Amino acid sequence: MIIDIITIFPEMFTSFLSTSIVKRAIELEQITVNLHQLRDYSHNKHRNIDDTPYGGGVGMLMTFPPIYDAIMSLKKENTKVIYLSPQGPILNQGMAFDLAKNEHLILLCGHYEGVDNRVLELVDYEISIGDYILTGGELPVMILIDVLARLVPGVILEESVVEDSLTDGLLKYPQYTKPRSYKGYDVPDVLLSGHHEEIAKWRKKMSLITTYEKRPDLLEKKDLTEEELLIVKSVKEK
Amino acid sequence: MIIDIITIFPEMFTSFLSTSIVKRAIELEQITVNLHQLRDYSHNKHRNIDDTPYGGGVGMLMTFPPIYDAIMSLKKENTKVIYLSPQGPILNQGMAFDLAKNEHLILLCGHYEGVDNRVLELVDYEISIGDYILTGGELPVMILIDVLARLVPGVILEESVVEDSLTDGLLKYPQYTKPRSYKGYDVPDVLLSGHHEEIAKWRKKMSLITTYEKRPDLLEKKDLTEEELLIVKSVKEK
Repeated sequence: MIIDIITIFPEMFTSFLSTSIVKRAIELEQITVNLHQLRDYSHNKHRNIDDTPYGGGVGMLMTFPPIYDAIMSLKKENTKVIYLSPQGPILNQGMAFDLAKNEHLILLCGHYEGVDNRVLELVDYEISIGDYILTGGELPVMILIDVLARLVPGVILEESVVEDSLTDGLLKYPQYTKPRSYKGYDVPDVLLSGHHEEIAKWRKKMSLITTYEKRPDLLEKKDLTEEELLIVKSVKEK
Repeated sequence: MIIDIITIFPEMFTSFLSTSIVKRAIELEQITVNLHQLRDYSHNKHRNIDDTPYGGGVGMLMTFPPIYDAIMSLKKENTKVIYLSPQGPILNQGMAFDLAKNEHLILLCGHYEGVDNRVLELVDYEISIGDYILTGGELPVMILIDVLARLVPGVILEESVVEDSLTDGLLKYPQYTKPRSYKGYDVPDVLLSGHHEEIAKWRKKMSLITTYEKRPDLLEKKDLTEEELLIVKSVKEK
């Protein structure tokens, strides 16, 4: 996958691209990330890319021509253009699976009070990462790349993708590791028992209980088996 | 506000802390950010902080003792400990307003398959930034700091906070800036008219229409006036 990022803060990506899974995906040549300074496409000698809104209002907007020129110069036949914006539908793992199938993405980072609305006519997907207000689109672009990097084949073990919490619509069961006891905090006995069947049963139960307690909305979206419904019911009654 | 970050990748924060609004908040002394390498709290000479899960399973978990020691050494009377985790309730602007009132936050970045579950007993809030799977908690911590930095008094203009999309429960109206026309894409005439009343009316209508088209779930949460309901109804009928 080739990812072209259009931003006025390319330097914000330095640490991100040189660490963790994204570095690995780049080294494995599964992902290529190119940074493009939007100011290089500015139409004036001060390299401005923002101006005041028509009709009045607070703050500055990113102007249309530099973004138009940047997108047009990078766009190929199979390109999808994504604008990270508070107005898009909110990213979820299902959308990420679909987006990960693309060969070429152009990711546009917004700033200031947003972009000239004509930009949206060039955009295939507006995507928000959540209902909170951020300074700009750079962090959301990093989030999207991190999510996509995990889904590109060969970057992480497939087994791990499947076992991740959320992939099957439930939160993961509680996990523990050594030591058995520290400062009065202990590991549940069942996990030390060595009975694999008991452990599997406990984990399934705890996964349902954890989901019920922390994210009941996820249970509503899921078709539970009769056995699962009984477990949830018993927790509700407590 | 003092923010202590516990992470195994402190270098991931370098670019983030030296750019944009966070740099500004730090320079204005509204926010102090301290990075803590979790490996400094490891109990062994290889500085390990992960181990295999009890009862079997894929991947590694972050162990309890180093995290316990790190949190206990940083915690003060008014501290809130936040663990950025896929299992928490999802961050929204309302939660951010409440969190911004704290004097001292400890933000714990998870990694690998998660943390030993005993860690949760030390945590005040588990928070997720969205229903998608990330490599670790570093980007979510940056998201949270970016959101909070905007809400700390004096960092940005208050007028701007109020005018932001989402703050009043609706998406913002489309905005345009110079030039009036480029490559066949034009600015709507009303914005060039100079009639402030017409512009305000158009904006209110477009804000409702944009919200209806892109995020109808937001309208459901809002008490609309009769006039607003009529506008939404007229769009629905189209």
